[in-house]
Amino acid sequence: MNIAFLFYDQMTALDAIGPHEILSRIPGASVFRVARQKGPIRTDSELLLTADHSLTDVRKADLLLIPGGGNATTLSDHPDILEWVRSIHATTTWTTSVCTGSLILGAAGILSGHRATSHWVTVDLLSKWNALPTRERIVEDGKIITAAGVSAGIDMALYLTAKIAGEPVAHSLQLGIEYDPDPPFDVGSPDKADPILREALRKRLLARFTY
Amino acid sequence: MNIAFLFYDQMTALDAIGPHEILSRIPGASVFRVARQKGPIRTDSELLLTADHSLTDVRKADLLLIPGGGNATTLSDHPDILEWVRSIHATTTWTTSVCTGSLILGAAGILSGHRATSHWVTVDLLSKWNALPTRERIVEDGKIITAAGVSAGIDMALYLTAKIAGEPVAHSLQLGIEYDPDPPFDVGSPDKADPILREALRKRLLARFTY
Repeated sequence: MNIAFLFYDQMTALDAIGPHEILSRIPGASVFRVARQKGPIRTDSELLLTADHSLTDVRKADLLLIPGGGNATTLSDHPDILEWVRSIHATTTWTTSVCTGSLILGAAGILSGHRATSHWVTVDLLSKWNALPTRERIVEDGKIITAAGVSAGIDMALYLTAKIAGEPVAHSLQLGIEYDPDPPFDVGSPDKADPILREALRKRLLARFTY
Repeated sequence: MNIAFLFYDQMTALDAIGPHEILSRIPGASVFRVARQKGPIRTDSELLLTADHSLTDVRKADLLLIPGGGNATTLSDHPDILEWVRSIHATTTWTTSVCTGSLILGAAGILSGHRATSHWVTVDLLSKWNALPTRERIVEDGKIITAAGVSAGIDMALYLTAKIAGEPVAHSLQLGIEYDPDPPFDVGSPDKADPILREALRKRLLARFTY
């Protein structure tokens, strides 16, 4: 089971590391952290991750995961990355994204006609690429699975693990990371949040996604 | 607000990155990722993180966070790290840990007489350092806050954010990472999991924590 994570500058670390903590522990998994070039990747929280492989090193994958980031759509200016995403998608069993990573799948032309989700602030932008924006935490359409904002990647990774390796493996990994969430506040989705706070956040985040 | 994360080889990435994604976005936060030496840190899922500072670079912090890892207790063999943890603790407003990171606080002598938690597999080991093992997801005792296994760090970080910066900031950050968890299975704590699977996992994880 070869799993490729796309890394890129200004990505959101948790979008990748949540699923990585789970998927990398599936028995038999080989994980490839791939970026335009091997080496350090500065995330949007300043933390440095490292890509172990360049795009040209990795030609196929059973599972592809694209994390989001504040500058996800500017990857449209990087045809080599979009071409790589398209070519890997042609080889996958599962093509997945977390948060605004779905905008990259969209820009790569992969979501046309497909139901997909994204961060709640950006989900409607998916229609730009003829995707069908869907406000659910995990959206599965054929072999494409997209997750909502950042932390939804953890839920998606467990869902995927059950599909790939069976429910007992998913259960063991969930128990291993003690994922019995108990958020101190019940404000983690836009319909639960204070409207004033929500709209301020929407405005601030959307400003990063101009076309 | 200076926030120091201890990084070390074979740490668990998500223990640190979950809280990092939240705490680093508190307005005015300055984050220091600190290890024995600056440079790459190989986590227990092979992912490389990077420490930006060495122990000797960082002499105080308002908030200290110690992530866990499969080899957390072998840090007892590293008196320089424990001495650093003790000296930083003397300067903090909050001293915190995620998962087996509490075993490092214990080994540093900080938990004696204090209630504390850890990963469900290792929580009872805290009594070795005269801590009072407490099976809760977040345990606050004075300025020491410990979180249970891996994913509990996300809940703790939001709890801490509200204390540090107020509830509106915590709410905004929770909504920003769309943390409205919906695990596909309800097996994330030992009392909810299948007993056979649970005991197999306990045996496998405990084997890493020998004294």
